[in-house]
Amino acid sequence: MQKIKIGMVGGGSGAFIGAVHRKAFFLDNQFELVCGAFSSNPERSMQTGTELGLDSKRVYANFDDMMRSEASLPAGERMQVVSIVTPNYVHFAPAKLAMENGFDVIIDKPLAFSVDEALELKRVAESAGRILALTHTYTGYPMIKEAKARVAAGELGKIRKIFVEYPQGWLSTFLEADGNKQASWRTDPSKSGQGGAVGDIGTHAANLAEYVSGLRIQEICAEVNIVVEGRKLDDDAAALLRFENNVSGVLVATQVAAGEENNLRIRVYGESGGLEWAHSDPNSLVYKPLDKPAQILRAGTGYLSAVAVKNTRLPAGHPEGYLEAFANIYLAFAEAVRDKQKGITNPDYDYDFPGVDDGVRGMVFVRTMIESAQSDKKWTPFKV
Amino acid sequence: MQKIKIGMVGGGSGAFIGAVHRKAFFLDNQFELVCGAFSSNPERSMQTGTELGLDSKRVYANFDDMMRSEASLPAGERMQVVSIVTPNYVHFAPAKLAMENGFDVIIDKPLAFSVDEALELKRVAESAGRILALTHTYTGYPMIKEAKARVAAGELGKIRKIFVEYPQGWLSTFLEADGNKQASWRTDPSKSGQGGAVGDIGTHAANLAEYVSGLRIQEICAEVNIVVEGRKLDDDAAALLRFENNVSGVLVATQVAAGEENNLRIRVYGESGGLEWAHSDPNSLVYKPLDKPAQILRAGTGYLSAVAVKNTRLPAGHPEGYLEAFANIYLAFAEAVRDKQKGITNPDYDYDFPGVDDGVRGMVFVRTMIESAQSDKKWTPFKV
Amino acid sequence: MQKIKIGMVGGGSGAFIGAVHRKAFFLDNQFELVCGAFSSNPERSMQTGTELGLDSKRVYANFDDMMRSEASLPAGERMQVVSIVTPNYVHFAPAKLAMENGFDVIIDKPLAFSVDEALELKRVAESAGRILALTHTYTGYPMIKEAKARVAAGELGKIRKIFVEYPQGWLSTFLEADGNKQASWRTDPSKSGQGGAVGDIGTHAANLAEYVSGLRIQEICAEVNIVVEGRKLDDDAAALLRFENNVSGVLVATQVAAGEENNLRIRVYGESGGLEWAHSDPNSLVYKPLDKPAQILRAGTGYLSAVAVKNTRLPAGHPEGYLEAFANIYLAFAEAVRDKQKGITNPDYDYDFPGVDDGVRGMVFVRTMIESAQSDKKWTPFKV
Amino acid sequence: MQKIKIGMVGGGSGAFIGAVHRKAFFLDNQFELVCGAFSSNPERSMQTGTELGLDSKRVYANFDDMMRSEASLPAGERMQVVSIVTPNYVHFAPAKLAMENGFDVIIDKPLAFSVDEALELKRVAESAGRILALTHTYTGYPMIKEAKARVAAGELGKIRKIFVEYPQGWLSTFLEADGNKQASWRTDPSKSGQGGAVGDIGTHAANLAEYVSGLRIQEICAEVNIVVEGRKLDDDAAALLRFENNVSGVLVATQVAAGEENNLRIRVYGESGGLEWAHSDPNSLVYKPLDKPAQILRAGTGYLSAVAVKNTRLPAGHPEGYLEAFANIYLAFAEAVRDKQKGITNPDYDYDFPGVDDGVRGMVFVRTMIESAQSDKKWTPFKV
Repeated sequence: MQKIKIGMVGGGSGAFIGAVHRKAFFLDNQFELVCGAFSSNPERSMQTGTELGLDSKRVYANFDDMMRSEASLPAGERMQVVSIVTPNYVHFAPAKLAMENGFDVIIDKPLAFSVDEALELKRVAESAGRILALTHTYTGYPMIKEAKARVAAGELGKIRKIFVEYPQGWLSTFLEADGNKQASWRTDPSKSGQGGAVGDIGTHAANLAEYVSGLRIQEICAEVNIVVEGRKLDDDAAALLRFENNVSGVLVATQVAAGEENNLRIRVYGESGGLEWAHSDPNSLVYKPLDKPAQILRAGTGYLSAVAVKNTRLPAGHPEGYLEAFANIYLAFAEAVRDKQKGITNPDYDYDFPGVDDGVRGMVFVRTMIESAQSDKKWTPFKV
Repeated sequence: MQKIKIGMVGGGSGAFIGAVHRKAFFLDNQFELVCGAFSSNPERSMQTGTELGLDSKRVYANFDDMMRSEASLPAGERMQVVSIVTPNYVHFAPAKLAMENGFDVIIDKPLAFSVDEALELKRVAESAGRILALTHTYTGYPMIKEAKARVAAGELGKIRKIFVEYPQGWLSTFLEADGNKQASWRTDPSKSGQGGAVGDIGTHAANLAEYVSGLRIQEICAEVNIVVEGRKLDDDAAALLRFENNVSGVLVATQVAAGEENNLRIRVYGESGGLEWAHSDPNSLVYKPLDKPAQILRAGTGYLSAVAVKNTRLPAGHPEGYLEAFANIYLAFAEAVRDKQKGITNPDYDYDFPGVDDGVRGMVFVRTMIESAQSDKKWTPFKV
Repeated sequence: MQKIKIGMVGGGSGAFIGAVHRKAFFLDNQFELVCGAFSSNPERSMQTGTELGLDSKRVYANFDDMMRSEASLPAGERMQVVSIVTPNYVHFAPAKLAMENGFDVIIDKPLAFSVDEALELKRVAESAGRILALTHTYTGYPMIKEAKARVAAGELGKIRKIFVEYPQGWLSTFLEADGNKQASWRTDPSKSGQGGAVGDIGTHAANLAEYVSGLRIQEICAEVNIVVEGRKLDDDAAALLRFENNVSGVLVATQVAAGEENNLRIRVYGESGGLEWAHSDPNSLVYKPLDKPAQILRAGTGYLSAVAVKNTRLPAGHPEGYLEAFANIYLAFAEAVRDKQKGITNPDYDYDFPGVDDGVRGMVFVRTMIESAQSDKKWTPFKV
Repeated sequence: MQKIKIGMVGGGSGAFIGAVHRKAFFLDNQFELVCGAFSSNPERSMQTGTELGLDSKRVYANFDDMMRSEASLPAGERMQVVSIVTPNYVHFAPAKLAMENGFDVIIDKPLAFSVDEALELKRVAESAGRILALTHTYTGYPMIKEAKARVAAGELGKIRKIFVEYPQGWLSTFLEADGNKQASWRTDPSKSGQGGAVGDIGTHAANLAEYVSGLRIQEICAEVNIVVEGRKLDDDAAALLRFENNVSGVLVATQVAAGEENNLRIRVYGESGGLEWAHSDPNSLVYKPLDKPAQILRAGTGYLSAVAVKNTRLPAGHPEGYLEAFANIYLAFAEAVRDKQKGITNPDYDYDFPGVDDGVRGMVFVRTMIESAQSDKKWTPFKV
């Protein structure tokens, strides 16, 4: 099987998420990295390309060069897809250009800097017939897919409550003042967009809630705070949620829960039981049927749904983690790309990766949270 | 040491919380049960009294008889304190009568049926010089006391966030339709008061948050739901909270989280760390200092505060539970009662049991939750 | 219902296990403490009796006086049963005397100082027709009873493996050198008997394994160590076990596992599943059926066996602990005592408390462990 | 940086461990798969090679062809290292041949079929100057490396006790009778060698105990069983261990603990504290200092040792798993291979991967376990 030729925008040495993307697409041997514009600094881009063993001719000084040069290469040689792993304010331009030049794209979340950008990317993807995948990592975990499958199959009965929380503690201090790279752009409204914690982790939480439940948020009542003095973007948020179908919920996304790591957790309750998943133990899904013993469902076992099995590499008891969840998104993206190459456009299966619609909803989520936080009215509609 | 003579209102055979109170006050051998009006049904009251080995002359047909008869007994013989374990709508009258007849009282929460009743009990207690204790059980756990002590000592730095949740699943079905005794009165507004889940467990959650943090709730933004069709009182609630000192929080209290038991959990975060306690593992308190390993603090160890030690009976590794937490409130109440008998009114220590002010705040909490839920405004002030 | 009149041997102020026994028998209001010989020091005995509110005439200077004086009291006044909570070397004499004077007895484990003493107590109990209960606490936990019931019902299929471990860390240092009271007698062969850790906690582990599995140990291959320099009795032991029915197992009992509390844990595996219980989470029993999700069975739920329900006081989610497990043994003892008073000698139910046969096996266990440890042969038979 | 050219022996489609090795060496982009003899069935070998996108000329019908053909290729083209992932009885021949033809090797554990084979591989590796790495996966986990580092730094004081256990349940039934591929060769003495569970997982447990503690096993007292009727090799084993320096321990390795997954766990206790690691939560290491709160040390944090940091890819709270642990061994192997290419033979750092000496000890462990199990003597010396 031929590997898919991939190029990268962003991900220079020292970046966090760029290296994650690479490990994720290398893991399953489905992609071959052929080119990149790894940094806005040309020298740094070249250095990264060299470290990665790329031909120097295909290490570019900027994404503009990369898109045009690659597009001019022979079909068998040029990159086929682009991975965009830059800060939020550098998602839109390369993604648009890539799609316009014939490349499918996979982009780190959130999709863009604003709702407008997100909607324009959606328009471009649709008009150009491009695949756009978005790395909402947590939906890649097999036990999250199991949770979704069980909710969809009605195992909990009608859904009633959704609790999702994403507490982190790493921004408990004024880290950006010390030049911490990850903190600096994430707390800078000119680079991150309208939301701080809301955009960085709140979008993950909201996406996960909608993904698992299959229900869309319709109204939000939010409080959004800047807790650490001097910070320019929110580092803490909480909201009451109203979903479709008369389901209510609570969302927490905070980066000032000192001592917490990356403790995304979701609980969904229906008439006849609940499901609970926590990122701290990602290979377990706790199923709590009403008036019966809770069951610990485990990745890699024989009793899971087909979609969970498809997204698992190892037998039960061999823990998979964050990189594997990430890689599952790349695998699904690869499947869609290969199908498109073969002319399969309406397969009878769901590729099951987050896409441009998730991306648009993510940006609307950020806007709605901020709008609600500034409003005296209890409920603000979630309107795309 | 003489035991304190105690009488009971409520707690007939088959009642849940009455038996809990008895085990709690028997455990440490500080109380002698001398009389009771155990049921509004005189025969049932007598049957319970007999089972408990009481002299039949001191098993009463109603609390009115009990208060007056006991008050007329010689000092060395008559009851000294009354335990009131009836449904909410039968708290006020026996409590008032008891205090007016010279008896200290200990009452199951919530304090009363309404804010007005609560305020009147406060007035009576103060004017009559009576002790009124309220069994907010969870504040009796040693590791909750440890949490409070650490927060008060500044170990977390300035507090920033408080998350408290109390999910239960036992009211996931329309249990009251089948005559379930516990469900029936709790979902009946004429017996329970203005709040269902809000009063039954929401008051515990709010009390716990204020107890541990030492901060008072000032504003509430609530959603309160009747989830199970046909039910007459709320079975589900969530709220954004604003505490004193610019601290925000989230409270969840639901009885329709199918599959959950009694999973009260509180997390408090400050500038330099967090604390987490869950009722499912009550002898542990997780301390999460910023950028250092989390510590599992354990009941019965040598490194805890004096107040935690005082509220622990056994060395580390010998689990204590709900009854022991309950009994700690009775022990503190006993200490106050004995001190009063000795004329000690201003000891240099805190008895540290929930009292009439907690009870008043609980009733105001219920009223504010309901008021907020009915309002389109985001924030409703918490005003006593 | 009349309470059972109980007297105590041992349990002076400051003793650990005496206070535990008292809380255990007070909790359920089935016993009335009427007398005691609380200490070999008469003044200390009197002080303890006074603190406990006893009539000074019934606080005795020694157990000999107590047995004879109580036996001479009128039937309606005198004690009916004796609780013996002294160090091991003072079990035999008071137990024998009590039984010979017509009193049923409940004794802290291990039963005696030696196998010979144990066998003599068995002879006396049988010839005198006395009830002898032994407080192997852990068998009092409801989820241990559930485990036993499920094994007996064949839910695991034929049993194959039993792992039991009891790591403690409190004797990691030479504590007895500092006069620590608990450490001093437990590490003194003249007070504790042939075994240190083996007797103090190894007997619990062995008893629990036999209780849950319903299988008796037949051969032992042990290593027994004195790890802390200067200590006079073993503080660490491990053994390969052979049970009846071709079942093998492993037992660990150590008091030098620094950092461990009281972490008794048992796992039993059969053809079709396993069960796991840990003292650190006593209200859960993990059932692991082969090739299916593990189930967390919880105390207080509606799906447990009758025996687990009988030994639980509270609904699910209200943790019970060590004192309640202890109290369950007193409740079962009380049931047997009351039945005997009513002339019921062969009820169609099992009282289900550890008795003299368990006590004899415990002493044989200690002897066999020590004998095996001193032998070059792999297997030493467990012979009563 | 040039990737290292790697070839594979074994790992045809459908094999478990072959795919694991590939993902492990692809993950970090340090290796390029250039050739393979993936199966003893030439067609299956070719099919696997095709799926992996290899040039068909470099997909070989057997390892003999592969070694000789590759050795004859130009230096810049031929493979540099060989990964051997066949069943135990096909480790020795390809490994020997590879080393004799100039290739470094990395081999799935256990090293060989017998002690003799292992010793011969050691001789060849040393005389030919080849690197031989062995994938004892669990030593690749960062928190295991942290445990080793802390023990070595004396944080626990003198070590006293080591408990290691590896319960699995997957062989609880006579799976090999149904043609299960993994079960079939593992339970076949002609393919697996002298040990079943002892070789398959017992070697992991023994290796882990020695790795973490830095102490070597000196004597073994073992019981080894065939529990499932009809099976030809042991599926269950337990042993008392004596390590250097007067340290004792217990080892359990069983494949009939029905309901267990892959629950390797190790606990090491010293004078002043203990460490506990479980494969079910591999990113945590519990440190239990004597008389202080237990600490949960977490992968990816800033307070760990250099070696743990080096073996971690992601910040705290982003779980890494089995494949990453596996990949850490490949990374260390790659480092050694590159160093050798650069002529660095005695770096001032430890490559820290399991090697031929671990492999020899593993085979001796198997032999000693079996010998002890057959002996009536308590202790059998562990002699290389």
